[in-house]
Amino acid sequence: MMAGMSVTVREAVFGLLRQFGLNTIFGNPGSTELPMYRDFPADFHYVLGLQESVVVAMADGFAQARGGAAFVNLHSAIGVGHAVGSLFTAYRNQSPLVVTAGQQARSILPFEPFLYSAEATNLPRPYVKWSCEPARAEDVPAAIARAFFTALQPPRGPTFVSVPVDDWDRPCTPLPPREVSRRLDGDPALLSRAAEMLSAAQCPVLVAGASVARDQAWDDLVGLAERHKAPVWVSPLSSRNSFPERHPLFAGFLPANREQIVARLTGHDLIVVLGAPVFTYHVEGHGPHIPNGAGLVQLTDDPAAAARAPVGLSIVTDLKLGIRALLTAPAPARTAPAVAPRAPVLLPDRLSDRFLMQQLAALRPPGSIVVEEAPSSRAAMHAYLPMLEPDSFYTCASGGLGHGLPAAVGVALARSGRRVIALLGDGSAMYSIQGLWSAAELALPVTFVIVNNGGYRALDEFAPHFGLTALPGTLLPHLDFCALARAQCVEAMRVNRPAELDAALSMAFAAAGPVLVEVCVEQAGPK
Amino acid sequence: MMAGMSVTVREAVFGLLRQFGLNTIFGNPGSTELPMYRDFPADFHYVLGLQESVVVAMADGFAQARGGAAFVNLHSAIGVGHAVGSLFTAYRNQSPLVVTAGQQARSILPFEPFLYSAEATNLPRPYVKWSCEPARAEDVPAAIARAFFTALQPPRGPTFVSVPVDDWDRPCTPLPPREVSRRLDGDPALLSRAAEMLSAAQCPVLVAGASVARDQAWDDLVGLAERHKAPVWVSPLSSRNSFPERHPLFAGFLPANREQIVARLTGHDLIVVLGAPVFTYHVEGHGPHIPNGAGLVQLTDDPAAAARAPVGLSIVTDLKLGIRALLTAPAPARTAPAVAPRAPVLLPDRLSDRFLMQQLAALRPPGSIVVEEAPSSRAAMHAYLPMLEPDSFYTCASGGLGHGLPAAVGVALARSGRRVIALLGDGSAMYSIQGLWSAAELALPVTFVIVNNGGYRALDEFAPHFGLTALPGTLLPHLDFCALARAQCVEAMRVNRPAELDAALSMAFAAAGPVLVEVCVEQAGPK
Repeated sequence: MMAGMSVTVREAVFGLLRQFGLNTIFGNPGSTELPMYRDFPADFHYVLGLQESVVVAMADGFAQARGGAAFVNLHSAIGVGHAVGSLFTAYRNQSPLVVTAGQQARSILPFEPFLYSAEATNLPRPYVKWSCEPARAEDVPAAIARAFFTALQPPRGPTFVSVPVDDWDRPCTPLPPREVSRRLDGDPALLSRAAEMLSAAQCPVLVAGASVARDQAWDDLVGLAERHKAPVWVSPLSSRNSFPERHPLFAGFLPANREQIVARLTGHDLIVVLGAPVFTYHVEGHGPHIPNGAGLVQLTDDPAAAARAPVGLSIVTDLKLGIRALLTAPAPARTAPAVAPRAPVLLPDRLSDRFLMQQLAALRPPGSIVVEEAPSSRAAMHAYLPMLEPDSFYTCASGGLGHGLPAAVGVALARSGRRVIALLGDGSAMYSIQGLWSAAELALPVTFVIVNNGGYRALDEFAPHFGLTALPGTLLPHLDFCALARAQCVEAMRVNRPAELDAALSMAFAAAGPVLVEVCVEQAGPK
Repeated sequence: MMAGMSVTVREAVFGLLRQFGLNTIFGNPGSTELPMYRDFPADFHYVLGLQESVVVAMADGFAQARGGAAFVNLHSAIGVGHAVGSLFTAYRNQSPLVVTAGQQARSILPFEPFLYSAEATNLPRPYVKWSCEPARAEDVPAAIARAFFTALQPPRGPTFVSVPVDDWDRPCTPLPPREVSRRLDGDPALLSRAAEMLSAAQCPVLVAGASVARDQAWDDLVGLAERHKAPVWVSPLSSRNSFPERHPLFAGFLPANREQIVARLTGHDLIVVLGAPVFTYHVEGHGPHIPNGAGLVQLTDDPAAAARAPVGLSIVTDLKLGIRALLTAPAPARTAPAVAPRAPVLLPDRLSDRFLMQQLAALRPPGSIVVEEAPSSRAAMHAYLPMLEPDSFYTCASGGLGHGLPAAVGVALARSGRRVIALLGDGSAMYSIQGLWSAAELALPVTFVIVNNGGYRALDEFAPHFGLTALPGTLLPHLDFCALARAQCVEAMRVNRPAELDAALSMAFAAAGPVLVEVCVEQAGPK
């Protein structure tokens, strides 16, 4: 042992994790990580997922709902490989995950042993902010510290450290406690100019994205909208809720389509985009990105989103600090916009996804949180299930399937005492059906609502965009979600008729543990 | 349309796939691939998997069992991301997969749209042999042709082409039919020298790996062993069966441990490694890699395995051609080695994994194929369930979990008329439990045997290697595999007692479609 080295790498790392408040480890163990778990400390909690896409999505939900980092430990190449889809989603979600993985022992790496991760640091790329396999065992604790501090820098996101199996028992020097800043204020001169532009605008409009929620700027945004009597749109495909969706100034959800965005924003002379790209598109578009003659200001925590925006003044800043800077300028007298019309009340005559959303809105317990991955029912959710409180809505920013079910487990773990409603399509739920087991083992109060429409309906609905009528691979018959749940010790109920819905939801919401409600929604008819 | 361009990219690609005999498409569709499926041709077959790790593992089993390539289509970044674990396994399995994935439309890539795959060609790295996103739509068919020919070059493996969604309807020139060689003969001078070394050896031993099976050299290896009266060991953790496991010259399975390999091979003056690395290790080791004084010759289809071998003469060659070259040299008169003792017959007094393997061996239908992923029961399988025919055994070369269940589906699809026995641990099965749905939809004759020992038992058994006694995250209680199967329309039976086993296996083997047999094996007692 060298001078000054008085602890093992394992002791130093667990000490660090305590410093960072990371005593929950999300993982699925393998032989290349075992020595990390020698004398597993009683103050740590191991959360097992049965596939690594589930592990990372649970950690992602946990980190987001906690407003901090989450720690993940995966099995060498295969565990990281299985997790790359969820890492992609975590990256797009700006989730600060510190992901570690096992690697084979240093002495046998030349022989490319079983389980060996070749180019271990490249495997999770491009969806990590930083990736490292330290050249020496004693550098592992500092690499994990750097991964933690890096993950929490804006824009937040996953980082990765590969740790050879023989490193954990080696000696090292413990790291001194450190502190690293986690937010950046924008250029004050540019923020002043943006504030003046807002004051000078005749008819400004706000577009709010997920970073408003991530930077805890809900109240500030409400204040800004009210001061300027500016309507607030949700940015296309936002993964978080940033503004009360029944506020008189709430304008709705911008579509991810260039021409349609321009149409929605026409009539405004200044567009202020807060915590979102300009703009997230799902399909090709043509012509200008904003109405002719309008100005645009973007406040973003993402330098890349600032650099690539096709129009306007972009300011890189923490959103809370940035919006507060905008609040320093006066607002002229303006007329409040008309309140957007609400969707009509639906009668219990058909078991549509819209009716389901309406009843969820009516019956959900106070303080409940929605984690959504039901792509074909998103419009129904927007119309009938408004999010009214901060940090009460999560969906994946990547557009992938498989995130929602395990993310709901992670959210529930982070926000104890809250009811979590996982709103999942049948196709989505099958991607990570193993996550139900973790919910049951952890006895978490999650209500899994399966919006079962018999297939990948969002694709069938999207097909006409390309002039397609028939598609292979979009039907999912012969699946029994209640049986899948019970097989993993999750209580379950099926709803086939509108009259059965309220009782099922009420029972599920009253349960102490997880319950799955499979709602067989009608598959045809108007949306 | 430019001169000479008379077809769409889609028409050219489907034409190519027909040329290549690839009319089965393994996939899970997303919006960035939809135009590929316009007018989906009636002579093509779309095989849907409910998560991309399942999709790629099905294709992997299909390609291996078919002895050719398989074609895969995934959804932009998320689909490829979910598949990286299975791509790692396919790479280690040397499975020639042509993997394509959607990408967003070229015109909106500057705006990093929804579903956009950043650095699309890096995402599957390092576990693809070649990766490409053509710079122009009209180059897509040639890229897919190159991916096909590259995947089939030794060592075979996955290749990747990213295709922007707007490319499929663009015009291009159809490609002329081509042919590209798929095997390489070794250096004749070095093969002659190796043959002379074998003739000159007093007591040679053969070590056979998966490439013997991949290169269809079963008969040649039997001939070589018999000519030289040389015992044949299976290389450590081989993913294929290369030699009849009840042949008098069959010596057993080499462990993945340096010192133990040296001990097994002591007494031989020449070690001939055929189609395997020298050697695949699972744990650290010390000292020499082969017995002192022994010589080593390696024949391998993998230049990297040749370059990194720590000892001996390595010759890169097709295994069938290489072994035939060795067969040209004469063999001296040698005494045949003693036949390895067989494991004792087990009575039906305990439901051990060994008893299960014994009964499987007795009851399996002629021509049946085993796909195994039951790590803690592999020793029991080696002792009691011998593979007797070529191409009758598949396991993953990567050591990952999640491959076996869907790979069995792919194997069954490729080898119609054969009974496939998927031998899966409970932990393994949960990794890709969604694959049961595909087996049911395809009505394939797969018998899924779940060796349920209540957890990741291989880890608990491995823990003492590191001096560990207790591990977090290795217990998997509260799972009902029969219910998981029935929920996906797969018939299922549970076996709790030895007396129930034969009837359950016989019923499963007689069924036309998939059946799952959950065998609750005892969790303690000697192995």
